[in-house]
Amino acid sequence: MITSPSSLRRSERSRRATLEAALALCTEKGYGRVTIEAIAARAGVSKKTIYRWWPSKSAVILEAFTDALVGTTPFVDTGDIAADLRANLSGAVKFISTPPFGPAYAGILSEMHHDDALAQTVRAKLVDPRCDEAVARLRRAQEQGQIPPDANLPLAVEMLYGPMYYRHVLRKPIQDEEEIAALVTHVLRAIGVPPEP
Amino acid sequence: MITSPSSLRRSERSRRATLEAALALCTEKGYGRVTIEAIAARAGVSKKTIYRWWPSKSAVILEAFTDALVGTTPFVDTGDIAADLRANLSGAVKFISTPPFGPAYAGILSEMHHDDALAQTVRAKLVDPRCDEAVARLRRAQEQGQIPPDANLPLAVEMLYGPMYYRHVLRKPIQDEEEIAALVTHVLRAIGVPPEP
Repeated sequence: MITSPSSLRRSERSRRATLEAALALCTEKGYGRVTIEAIAARAGVSKKTIYRWWPSKSAVILEAFTDALVGTTPFVDTGDIAADLRANLSGAVKFISTPPFGPAYAGILSEMHHDDALAQTVRAKLVDPRCDEAVARLRRAQEQGQIPPDANLPLAVEMLYGPMYYRHVLRKPIQDEEEIAALVTHVLRAIGVPPEP
Repeated sequence: MITSPSSLRRSERSRRATLEAALALCTEKGYGRVTIEAIAARAGVSKKTIYRWWPSKSAVILEAFTDALVGTTPFVDTGDIAADLRANLSGAVKFISTPPFGPAYAGILSEMHHDDALAQTVRAKLVDPRCDEAVARLRRAQEQGQIPPDANLPLAVEMLYGPMYYRHVLRKPIQDEEEIAALVTHVLRAIGVPPEP
């Protein structure tokens, strides 16, 4: 089958409309009450079109979420490891706590508890690549002599992101900039980096 | 109304049977599929009896959970802060990952996302008292000169328990004893305690 440029454009438009509708519905109704029917109606596409691209509701929502997350919180390297960790964590905290992504992610996390395939996909597509990026950024700092050679970098990543999940799950207030800065300082000190002057 | 000793014993027996039935059903069916009807049938008590003591399914399960947790992971003070933190965290990790409590708590956490009253109750009855206990244990170590006077103790508690929740929510493998020991060492170093010899 030959796909014309205008049909590709239409496809991409439908894809974007579907992802946006899915996120909007998560915010309005809560993840549990979103259906493929409602996403299709809101996006102005057929259910058949949605099922052609995604196997399930959770797959649609996860893709919407991953798409947006990748653009919003890139892991930059300014040469200042503390500043870069603060910027990354701050972006992640805002993302996880703000509609439409916050409620969508909460719904995904909740669904993961009785859906092994979804849990596996979320770890593989969303969580593990971001942990790897964080370890890679720490490793570059290590290569530049800013972090001791024997530092436990995966543990540092868990100490950085653990409190964010802890607060999210328990629905405690999100970390503010001051708390994020304190956490980064503490994690760096934990792996042997002397405090900044 | 005068309550006879034998009726009090019957009540306590019904209460325990209800809590045990609730936890067993969480393990077998998953929190979401447990009903008050099923709990009543399993415990051999009437629905009316259950509703006389608890307002909702989540209240029954939360009480079962809190009852068991308080007995299982007390915060001891042996004088060795690192050992006491390891023992406490290790108890909490086992608790959160083992049936029947693991699945029950996962269900409660999941339900908290669309039940503000439950979230409030879980924090007030379960989480906050345990955070306070941990801070109190750290404060005693501080008073004994084992931790610097300016240490940020609430942050230390989040660094200790955050990774456990992070793994639980993302359904990563639970922390083993070696990882727990490494985390405790790192958190203590983060708040200014020199590594053990």
